[in-house]
Amino acid sequence: MKRLILLRHGQSEWNLANRFTGWVDVDLTDNGREEAAAAGQMLKAHGFRIDHAFTSVLKRAIRTLWITLDEMDQMWVPQITDWRLNERHYGALTGLNKAETAEKYGDEQVHIWRRSYATAPPELGEDDTRHPRFDPRYAKLMPNQLPGTESLKTTLERVLPYWDSTIAPTLKKSDTVLIAAHGNSLRALIKHIEGMSDEDITKVEIATGDPLVFELNDDLSLIRSYYLREQEIQSEA
Amino acid sequence: MKRLILLRHGQSEWNLANRFTGWVDVDLTDNGREEAAAAGQMLKAHGFRIDHAFTSVLKRAIRTLWITLDEMDQMWVPQITDWRLNERHYGALTGLNKAETAEKYGDEQVHIWRRSYATAPPELGEDDTRHPRFDPRYAKLMPNQLPGTESLKTTLERVLPYWDSTIAPTLKKSDTVLIAAHGNSLRALIKHIEGMSDEDITKVEIATGDPLVFELNDDLSLIRSYYLREQEIQSEA
Repeated sequence: MKRLILLRHGQSEWNLANRFTGWVDVDLTDNGREEAAAAGQMLKAHGFRIDHAFTSVLKRAIRTLWITLDEMDQMWVPQITDWRLNERHYGALTGLNKAETAEKYGDEQVHIWRRSYATAPPELGEDDTRHPRFDPRYAKLMPNQLPGTESLKTTLERVLPYWDSTIAPTLKKSDTVLIAAHGNSLRALIKHIEGMSDEDITKVEIATGDPLVFELNDDLSLIRSYYLREQEIQSEA
Repeated sequence: MKRLILLRHGQSEWNLANRFTGWVDVDLTDNGREEAAAAGQMLKAHGFRIDHAFTSVLKRAIRTLWITLDEMDQMWVPQITDWRLNERHYGALTGLNKAETAEKYGDEQVHIWRRSYATAPPELGEDDTRHPRFDPRYAKLMPNQLPGTESLKTTLERVLPYWDSTIAPTLKKSDTVLIAAHGNSLRALIKHIEGMSDEDITKVEIATGDPLVFELNDDLSLIRSYYLREQEIQSEA
């Protein structure tokens, strides 16, 4: 049996400031760091040994991974950072306050941007300094790889090829893989593994700082999935 | 021009306790963490942008790398951990206090073990719990790859094939590579790059927490090397 562990990063500085974050490289708050440490302690207590770890190129996910591996005393585990595990790009909403955006565009429009499957926020212009082409971490990518906005659907369209090309082959050759990432890049993976509909995945809320464990067969078909904290609570009951 | 930056980790808990460390996975002290942060700040101030980073599977080197990349705001840089960048294995001296070892074996013998090129300390038995075969991070290696002791010479003999197979090809495809590692694995690299004799390399003391920058031609032949802190002092003078 193989295990894939998905870990959504905890509180970031812009969660706290109620701003649309997307690809902006904000850090974890102290609270977010504590969530990562608690996740690492849980994984350690359950005896998980990680063979390979993946994360995005955004520091709130990378730091979550580092803190988790540190708590597990497994800092040496090979880790791969890749932009395809980034959060959904929030387009022209990037950096805006969520309450102010709702006042300007109306609650309903903001709800559609946040929760629909295929509707993306307005696109960032290529000359907007928030566009990823100005960020050195994306310097080696082709211009047409870099989004100016993304829906959950287009997020999936860059996450899933990476699953197929890199994560799945790695998992097939190992026992346990950890992915520390973001709400929407993890949704893409969950939709794929669970075989969920477009409609259903928009309703999935992933807990932060709580390892979501998938037990998989050798062909990566699903046996079962569970949150580690939930299982702890059940076994205490 | 290419740049290879070598960074020796700073003070560890066993530096402080005056014990032979080798492959034991002791952590940095607060002082050692500050050395890493200072190195990162220097590299950032000089505008270095890292394309690839390498480190050992020992946390004092990994943490040095993590702190350095964090200070440079380049946490996303691809990093590879490999046991071949580990410190020299100290054999049966592993964990012993240096002063007590000198009392037992004599200063001269200890000096030979510490500073000769080809003399290794007594070998650890395969059933000694300090032997690397009991450590999960080496579980996938062949038994004959795992040392029970090492001289500087045999350390070179595992570092240089890794340089040839992995680091040098990576550096040829990029501009700037950072290696955070240990006194003796870094000596192996310096001996190779500088073309030093067996005798001369035993006398080289590498500063901790001070980036040692090699400027190299495209074929990786040496242009010049310098310590970053030294250069700062010179340019202030």
